[in-house]
Order: sequence, then C-alpha cells, then structure tokens
Amino acid sequence: MKIEHPYLLFLGDVPDALAAKTAIGVVDWRKDWCAGQLRLPGCAADTGLADMSISEARDKGVRTMVVGAVNAGGRLPDHWISSIVDALDEGLDVASGLHVRLGSIPAIREAADRNGRQLFDVRHNSETFATGKGTKRTGKRILAVGTDCSVGKKYTALAMDKAMNERGYQSSFCATGQTGVLISGRGVALDAVIADFISGAAEWISPETAEDHWQIIEGQGSLFHPSFAGVTLGLLHGSQPDGFIVCHEPTRRTMRGVQTPLPTIQQVIDLTIQCGQLTNPAIQCIGIAVNTAALGEDEARDYLAKVSAEHGDLPATDPVRFGMEAIVDKVADIFGAP
Amino acid sequence: MKIEHPYLLFLGDVPDALAAKTAIGVVDWRKDWCAGQLRLPGCAADTGLADMSISEARDKGVRTMVVGAVNAGGRLPDHWISSIVDALDEGLDVASGLHVRLGSIPAIREAADRNGRQLFDVRHNSETFATGKGTKRTGKRILAVGTDCSVGKKYTALAMDKAMNERGYQSSFCATGQTGVLISGRGVALDAVIADFISGAAEWISPETAEDHWQIIEGQGSLFHPSFAGVTLGLLHGSQPDGFIVCHEPTRRTMRGVQTPLPTIQQVIDLTIQCGQLTNPAIQCIGIAVNTAALGEDEARDYLAKVSAEHGDLPATDPVRFGMEAIVDKVADIFGAP
Repeated sequence: MKIEHPYLLFLGDVPDALAAKTAIGVVDWRKDWCAGQLRLPGCAADTGLADMSISEARDKGVRTMVVGAVNAGGRLPDHWISSIVDALDEGLDVASGLHVRLGSIPAIREAADRNGRQLFDVRHNSETFATGKGTKRTGKRILAVGTDCSVGKKYTALAMDKAMNERGYQSSFCATGQTGVLISGRGVALDAVIADFISGAAEWISPETAEDHWQIIEGQGSLFHPSFAGVTLGLLHGSQPDGFIVCHEPTRRTMRGVQTPLPTIQQVIDLTIQCGQLTNPAIQCIGIAVNTAALGEDEARDYLAKVSAEHGDLPATDPVRFGMEAIVDKVADIFGAP
Repeated sequence: MKIEHPYLLFLGDVPDALAAKTAIGVVDWRKDWCAGQLRLPGCAADTGLADMSISEARDKGVRTMVVGAVNAGGRLPDHWISSIVDALDEGLDVASGLHVRLGSIPAIREAADRNGRQLFDVRHNSETFATGKGTKRTGKRILAVGTDCSVGKKYTALAMDKAMNERGYQSSFCATGQTGVLISGRGVALDAVIADFISGAAEWISPETAEDHWQIIEGQGSLFHPSFAGVTLGLLHGSQPDGFIVCHEPTRRTMRGVQTPLPTIQQVIDLTIQCGQLTNPAIQCIGIAVNTAALGEDEARDYLAKVSAEHGDLPATDPVRFGMEAIVDKVADIFGAP
C-alpha cells in the first residue's frame, strides 16, 4: 500500500478546524505534497492552501484526493459522495480517515471500479501480515513511547525524523496511526490490526533497511494504559528499537479515558527497557519529549532541566518549543555522526 | 453468544486423531454435554462416543452440531457441507473451529437463514467490544500464564476450575481460545479480536460476578513471546487476576515458532506481577504448573520439589500427573475456604 502524492485535501463543509485536523496535520508535515484544498459551501476549516476544483487538481498532476475531515458521528455525509465520485472519475485515487469504509458505499465502489482507481481507508487495513518473528533486522530504529495516549508521540516522531534528516542522517518516518499514514503515504493503523498480528504488522511497518538508515516509528498507547497496552507492547517488540523517546504531558493526572493514574517517566523507561530487550538487548532511552504548553517559557526550561537531571541527564525537550536538536545530539553521541 | 448443548460432534472423514483434537478436547472436559459423534465413511478419528445420525441426535435433544475436526489446509471439504446443511435443516445450530467462516458458504448461510438457526465460528468473533476500562470488578479471578505458547495453559485452567468446584468453591472456566469456547459454550478467541479491544474483550470474558465466585481464565501466549505478547498483556490487564498460575514445559529451549530463548519461571512471575498491578495491585502468583511428561515419576517429583523450593515454596505440580490440589490448598490459605 502506497498512497501517491500530490494530494488534494477535501475538507467538506465541516463547522470548525478541529474537524479538519487530519488535513491540517498533513499540511503541517507534508506541505510540499499538497497541491490545494477543496471546500464545500459553508466549510469553516482552512488549511491555508489554495482552493482548487477537482479538474484543476487533475490538471496540476494531483494523484490522490484525501478526505481529511470528519463530520459528527464519523459518517460520510451524502453530499460528500458526489465529490468523491467526481475525483475518481477524474482519475484520482481517494484516501480517507473516516470510520466508514469508502468501498462500502456503492456509488464510490462502482466509480473506483469503473475508473480502475484505488480507495485507501487508513483507519482500516487490508494487508495480510505474518505473525512477528522477533529476529534482528538491519538498520536503526527509534520508537516514540509515552506515559499515556495523546501526549505527542506522533509529533515527536515526525519532528525527530525532520531533525535527523536536517542533520544529514538518512531517516524516514514510519506511521502506525491513521493521520501518520496519510503523512507518510504508507503504514498501518496498528490499533485496527487483528490481535495475533500486532508485532508482525510492526515488523512490516519498519522492515529491514540499510544499516545507516534510521526509521523513526510513531508510537501508540502506553505500556501503562489498561485499554491499549497490548498494542504498545506488540509495537515495541515488532519495532525492536535501538533507542526510544519517552513522551509526557505534565498536567495529566489520570490516563486518557480511564481512572488509572499516570505512571512516572522512570517507570516507562524501566518497563520499556525490560520488555524491549526481548527483541533488542541494546535498547536504550535517548531522550524525553515533554508538552510544556501549560507552562511559561522560563518555567518550561526549569521543568525540562529538572526532568533531565532526574533521569541521568538524558536530554529533555519540548519538540514544539525547543526542537529536537538535543536528542539528535544524543543520537550522535551514542551511535556516531551521520 | 452462548453455544447450547447437548452437542453432536462432527468428525468428518479426517485421517487421524490429531485432526479431531478439538472434538477430543470437548469430550475430555464436557463429556456430559456430548450426546454422540457423527463420522463419515473413512474417518480414522474416534472420540469414544456413540456414533449417531443427525436425526437421532435431534430426537435425543441435541442443540448444536460441533465441527470438531479440521482437514488439511483448514478448508471445509465440499462433502462436509451437506452434513452441515442437514443439521441446520433438522433444527440444530452449528459451531465450527475451522478457519473458514460457515456463513461464507452460500448453501450453509441459506440453510441457517431458512431454519432460523445460529452459526458459531469460534475462531472468529462477531461481538462488538468496548475498549478496556481497567476498573475493579467484583468476584475473584485466576489467570493461567506461561513461559511460552502451548505449555498447558488451557489444560491448567480447566483442571483448576474442576478442582476448585470439587473443593466446594463456586468457579467457572472462562475461554479465550477456540477449543475453550466450545468447552465452555461461551468466550472469545482473543487472538482474533481487533487490537484496540484486547483488554476490553478480556473484561467481557470475565465480567463482574458474585464476590465469592471464581473465574478461572484460560491464558494466551506469553509476555516473553515476540509474536503474541501484546495479546498476553491485554488479557492480563483485562482479566485483572487476583492470582495467576505459571505454566511451563521444561524441555522447551526456544519459544514456539521463533528463535527467542525461553524466559525463566521467575522472570514470568516478576513481569506478570509488575504489569498486572496496573489493574489489580494485589495480584500474586499462586502456583506453578509443569508438564513433566518427558520425565519419569520420581524424576518429576524431584523436579517439582526443586521448582517449588526455588520459588518461595509456591506449590508446583503437573496438572495431568498429580492434579491441582496443591494449588487449591494455596488458594484456601490465601483467600480462605469456600
């Protein structure tokens, strides 16, 4: 599965920016892949890209229309269907982050068949995976892990990939969630895989690569989250990381959606090493990424200095505020310059 | 989902007993649920039950025909289909441990619809689960865990359930694998659940129950198996056991199907407690179940005495050879008499 760019981002007529966060995420990280946006009358979201019709998009070489917005309930509104059919009729593929499968809607299925185009439902997956093997693959891997869900693991992995590339490392981002798949054009929403194949899918997501190539793998869940820890452990085993970055949100008191208290950063480091050694005995923590949005700038610097001091002087940074340079420095220290 | 008994066990025309091991497992543990067996000409397997036609079975009150055999490749041979259609036409439900879904075969689908009968594919699941909540439920729970896959976790859980009941405890077996589901008439093949819902499915499998009722939960995989540990961790979190039994096979050197060395029993105890405390802070190991089939009787006794001494005098037994009494004694010591 490879979603071809350039993309046309379809926003429908959603009532606010939050409903278009998938599209906005794609623009944030892959603006050069995005030719324009298509908005229906009444749309209140805006990615800042040029508005563009489907035929204009086709003329500019767009390959895929990305349905990068969700309406209430996750359904596909009837009045979005004709835009999707038009895109297929103009020769574009269509990728969607909706819960509903595009192919389950007869008009869309027929248009795809009629035009020989592909439909990508990034919340689902159609790949067949092997079970995980646990054998060492060539290449180097970094995994984002977290004290909780939704603490910035995707952002951290994307920022790390960007910073590594800018420093001259060969690196690529490996997606394990739906928005990540649209950002990378490849990957799997790991939470939608059949349980027996979690680590096998993680191995597929981060396959054997050149020895000096770094795969920066988007994390999922937390080993300490009672709903999703199984996904996290399978991802850890399958991705066999050489290094991992712990992501943390300091104002969170209980795990997302449940009453379980947050673990400490040290607990996450210890359990990740303990479990990760099964498939990579050399696994180590290379840094801590904290969302300090709730703190003032001086306060944030003090907090990060304290976190670093408390964890053996591991680099601690806020990827949004202070960038990933400190963690790339750590990679250079441990594994050498590019 | 509840599979109604009595059962008629359908063995087809399989060439050996191994191909009928699902049926044999059901007879081993639920002989009183099994009215008879149906074998086609050439069948080389035998559960020891009376041979019985479908119409005889119907006359004896059989509710479900269980397809308890697999042919090479896991497919459903064309010449088995007419027996299944006959069973549905006689008013029986049909349950199957085959990979292929019964409902995917038009003749079977139509016969089920025509007769208003249910089809159960115990390797798959059609339940919709919530994500795991991690909140404490009433009742008591024991989970079988293992140093590897296929080390006797299902046998241990069934033997423990039987021994607890015989000692006067209120107890029930909770199935997490396909044969277990046929043995208990309820449950889920956990490895077939979507990854996001592993712990939620485990919560569904072992729901809130009376405070003095014990659920004895079939284990899956191993926290140290690089293919399946995610399933194991989700099951551990979702089943929130008060006690767990470590199952072990002493001749195994590498984990089943992979090159990873086996963990020690102590490693399994430590990691199970460490992870299990997330949803039950009082989790503890209550015993060790060893498959000593490769050892002579004296040798087996010596080995078990050594294992017990090495693990703080936890009871160590071979469930097949020496029964589960020692571990039930431990339950009585810790949690009190029934």
